[in-house]
Amino acid sequence: MGSSLELYNQYKSTMQKIADVKYAAAVLQWDQETYLPSKGADFRGQQLATLSEIAHEMFTGEKVGNLLQDLLSADLRGDQKRNVELTWEDYTRLKKLSPDFVRKMSEAVSASFHAWMEARKQNQFTIFEEKLSPLVALKRQEAELYGYQAHPYDALMNEYEKGATVAMIDTIFEDVKAPLRNLLEKEQQKQLVDDSFLQRHFPKQQQWEWGIYLAKQLGFDFESGRQDISEHPFTTNFSSQDVRITTRIDENDFANMTWSTIHEVGHALYEQGLPTEQYGLPLGEYASLSIHESQSRLWENCIGRGTDFWDYYFPKLKEFFPKQFDDVSKGQFAKAINKVQPSLIRTEADELTYHFHVMVRYELEKRLIEGSLQVKEIPLYWNDQYKKLLGVDVPDDKQGCLQDVHWSHGSFGYFATYSLGSFYAAQLWQQAKKDLPGIGAQIATEGQTGWLLSWLRSNVHKHGRFYNSDQLCKLVTGKNLDSSVFVSYLTEKLNALN
Amino acid sequence: MGSSLELYNQYKSTMQKIADVKYAAAVLQWDQETYLPSKGADFRGQQLATLSEIAHEMFTGEKVGNLLQDLLSADLRGDQKRNVELTWEDYTRLKKLSPDFVRKMSEAVSASFHAWMEARKQNQFTIFEEKLSPLVALKRQEAELYGYQAHPYDALMNEYEKGATVAMIDTIFEDVKAPLRNLLEKEQQKQLVDDSFLQRHFPKQQQWEWGIYLAKQLGFDFESGRQDISEHPFTTNFSSQDVRITTRIDENDFANMTWSTIHEVGHALYEQGLPTEQYGLPLGEYASLSIHESQSRLWENCIGRGTDFWDYYFPKLKEFFPKQFDDVSKGQFAKAINKVQPSLIRTEADELTYHFHVMVRYELEKRLIEGSLQVKEIPLYWNDQYKKLLGVDVPDDKQGCLQDVHWSHGSFGYFATYSLGSFYAAQLWQQAKKDLPGIGAQIATEGQTGWLLSWLRSNVHKHGRFYNSDQLCKLVTGKNLDSSVFVSYLTEKLNALN
Repeated sequence: MGSSLELYNQYKSTMQKIADVKYAAAVLQWDQETYLPSKGADFRGQQLATLSEIAHEMFTGEKVGNLLQDLLSADLRGDQKRNVELTWEDYTRLKKLSPDFVRKMSEAVSASFHAWMEARKQNQFTIFEEKLSPLVALKRQEAELYGYQAHPYDALMNEYEKGATVAMIDTIFEDVKAPLRNLLEKEQQKQLVDDSFLQRHFPKQQQWEWGIYLAKQLGFDFESGRQDISEHPFTTNFSSQDVRITTRIDENDFANMTWSTIHEVGHALYEQGLPTEQYGLPLGEYASLSIHESQSRLWENCIGRGTDFWDYYFPKLKEFFPKQFDDVSKGQFAKAINKVQPSLIRTEADELTYHFHVMVRYELEKRLIEGSLQVKEIPLYWNDQYKKLLGVDVPDDKQGCLQDVHWSHGSFGYFATYSLGSFYAAQLWQQAKKDLPGIGAQIATEGQTGWLLSWLRSNVHKHGRFYNSDQLCKLVTGKNLDSSVFVSYLTEKLNALN
Repeated sequence: MGSSLELYNQYKSTMQKIADVKYAAAVLQWDQETYLPSKGADFRGQQLATLSEIAHEMFTGEKVGNLLQDLLSADLRGDQKRNVELTWEDYTRLKKLSPDFVRKMSEAVSASFHAWMEARKQNQFTIFEEKLSPLVALKRQEAELYGYQAHPYDALMNEYEKGATVAMIDTIFEDVKAPLRNLLEKEQQKQLVDDSFLQRHFPKQQQWEWGIYLAKQLGFDFESGRQDISEHPFTTNFSSQDVRITTRIDENDFANMTWSTIHEVGHALYEQGLPTEQYGLPLGEYASLSIHESQSRLWENCIGRGTDFWDYYFPKLKEFFPKQFDDVSKGQFAKAINKVQPSLIRTEADELTYHFHVMVRYELEKRLIEGSLQVKEIPLYWNDQYKKLLGVDVPDDKQGCLQDVHWSHGSFGYFATYSLGSFYAAQLWQQAKKDLPGIGAQIATEGQTGWLLSWLRSNVHKHGRFYNSDQLCKLVTGKNLDSSVFVSYLTEKLNALN
C-alpha cells in the first residue's frame, strides 16, 4: 500500500481509463443517432455491448475494489475524499450487476432502439413491443439485483436521481396536481391565443442558422462542441471540451427546433462548465439528472420563454425570418410561445401541461416495473391516461406511446427528473434574480445572458457531483425543493401575459 | 481443452470482441477527422490511446495465446484453419510490443496528428517536427522490437505489406524508373494539353452531389456506408456494413474531388465486399495494403480516367455542370484528365509521375528509420528530391513535406504500397478485360460497371486475407507481380490519347 497521494493518483488514472471507454461508447451512440448507415446497426450494437462490458469489468473488478478499500482508510480531504466516497457508492451499486448482465442489457438496448426507430417509421407499436418486452424484463431483474426497500421502481430511479423514491415522487406530484389543474382551467377560460404564425413555412437552412446563432448567443462554445441533426434531440459529451447537442427541424413548426435547441444548450452549458481537471472522476460529473434538467429548463423556459429575452431577440428573429413574422407583434409572439393547451407530444408541450405528460409516464413505468402492467398494454393505458389527465384523444402510437426515445434506451425511472428539473429551475431562477438585480433588464436591453451563466457556473456547475440535488438546492437557495415556487412562477408569468 | 469446434467458437467470440474495440477506436478516429471540435482533441487522444491499449492487451494476453496454441494442434480445415494461422502470425508479431508501448505510440500519434493539422494551417514544418521526432524515435524502436533480417524499415513495411523488404522494393522501383522517365520525356515533347477548364468555378454543393452520384453509380452502398468531408480523403470501416469515405472539395478544382472520390469508392467497394460473416477474423480483412490500393487505383485510373467511362459519363457531367463544360469536347476532357505533368501534390498527380512522388517518400522514410536522416532535415531532403526526380521547385512545406497525413498517423512503410497497388491494378484490369470480353463497350454505352464489380467480388474481395498479395495476383492472373504490365498499360493509354 503506497502513500495516500500515490493511491489517489492510481485511482485517478484507473478512473480516467474507464471514463475513456465510457466516453468512447458515447461517441458510438452519438454516431448511431446522427450518422450511422442503416445496415451498420447490428455490428454497432455489438460494439457498444462490448464497450459496456469492458467498462463494467474494469470498474467492478477486484483491482478497483481493493484500491477503493485502501483509499477509504487513507488520509484524504476535500475533493479527493469526496471523489473516493462517490466512486465507492457507484462501485457497491454496480458491483451488483455481472458483466454478462451488463452486456445483455446493452444488446437489448441496441435492439430496442432500432425497433423503436422502425416502429415509429411504420407507426406500429407491436414492432417495438417485441424488443421492449425482454428489455423491461431485464430492467425488472436489474431492480431486484440493485435491491430496494419499498418499491422496485425506487431502485431504477436511483440510477438517475440518487435517493428518489416512489413515496417521494408520489407526494410531489400530488402537491402540484391540483394547483396545476386549477391554473389550466383558468387558462382555458381565457380567450384562445392565436399561435398559427408559428406554423408558417420556416426553411430548413434558415432555421439551422437561427439555432446556431441562438446557441452562440447563449454561450455555447463551438470549439468545445457542435450541433447535429437527429431523430430526437439530445445532449451528450465525451469530456467537458467536447459537448454535442442535436436538434430536429420541422419546416412547418418554428417552435419545435427553437426551444429544443435552447433546452439542449442549457444541458450543454452545464457540461461545458463542469471542471475539466476532474475528467473521469465524480466531481467532473453532473450532480443528478434533475439538476441537469433544471439547467435545460431554466434556459428553455425561465429565459427562453420570458418576455425580457424576446424584448431583445424578437427584432433579431425578424431579421432571420422577415416574411414569417411580418404581421406579428412582440406581444402576440410572447403569448403564442407561452400558450397553454393540452396536447399530444411531451417535448412540444407548454410549461404547464408538460407535467401531466410526465405523470402519465411515471405512473406507467411504475406499473411496468412492479409488474401490474404488461408491455402490450402500454398503448391502451397511455391513451386512456392522456384522455383522463390531458383530455386529448391519441390518434396513433407515433403521437402516443412511441414518441419518446427513453424506453428504447432502457431508461426507466428517468421521466420524473424532468418535472423535478422544472421545479428546481424555478427555484434557482428565483434565487438568481435575487442575487443578480437587474438581470432581467440586462437581458432585455442587451440580450446578454453571460451574467446568469457565470452565476450558474459558480453556484451549480463547478461543484460537479459534490452535492446531491437537494443539498445543492439548499446550498444555493437556502431551501429544500419546494414545488410551490414553480406554481407561483408560472401563475405570475401567465397572469402577466394578459 | 474442449472440442475443436468449441475452441474455434471461443476464439471467434474473443476475436470479435477485440474487433469491437478496434472498430470503436476507428469510429473515434473517423470522428476526429470529420467532426471533432478543436478543444476536444486532447481527451480524444487519451481515449484513443486507452482503446488501443485495451485491444492490444486483450489480443496479446495469455488467454488468447493459450487458445491459439490449442487451436494450432486442433482438427481444423479450410477457412477456420487459415483464420487461426493468420491470427497466430499477428499474435507472435504484436506480442513483441508491450501494452505500454502501444499506448505511448497511440498518444504520440494523436499529438502528432494535431501538430500536423496546426503545422499545415500555419505552413510551418517546425510545429510538426516537435511531435514527429519522438514519433519517429518510437517507430525506430518498434522496428527493433519487431526484429528484421536486413533493414529496420523491412519490419515497418511488414505491418502494411507482409513480406515486403527494402531489397524487393528497391528492385521494383529500379525496374520502373527508367521506362517511366522515358515515357515522361516523350509526353513532355508533345504539345501542351490544355486542362485549364478543370480549374473553373465548381460550386461546393454541386460537386458534392456529383460525387454522391458517381459513388452510387459505381456501386457504393449508402445503406452500408456514407461520405463526409475531411482535410485528407480517406476510407475507414467499422464492419463491412459500415464503410465510410471522405472527400474534400476545392471550388476551383474539379479534378481533386472527382478522382479522390472514385479512389476512395474503390477502397470502399473492397471493404463492402469482404465477407460479413468473418467479422473480426482475418478472412474478414483485406489481403494487404497493396491489394487495397489496387482496388482504389483500378477504379480511379483504369476505369475513372478511361475513355470508355467518359463516353457514358461525359454527357452526365455536362448535366451537372452545364456552364463549366460548355465549350469542352469529350476528347479534350479525356486528354486533360490524363495530362502528364510533374507537380507538387501526390494525391493530384497523374498516373505516371505519381510514382516519383512515392519514390521520394520511400527513400526518405528508409533513411529516417535507418537513422541516416533526421526529422529536421526532412524539408531540405524533400525539396531536393522533388527537384531531382520531378524537376519541380517546392515553394513551401504545405505543398511539400506537410502534404500527407501518413507520418502524423505513425504510418511509416506505407507509401510503397501505393505504387505496388497501381502495378497490381494494371495486372488485374488486364485480366478482367480478358475474362469479361465486351466490358469496355458495356461501360461506354451503359455506364454499367457492375460486371467488373462482380468480377472483383469473386476474384479478390471474397478471399479476405486468405492469400497474400502475390499469391492472390498469381491466383487471379496466373502470374506474379510484373510492373512491366503497368508500364505497357500506361504507354498504350497515353499513345491512344493523341
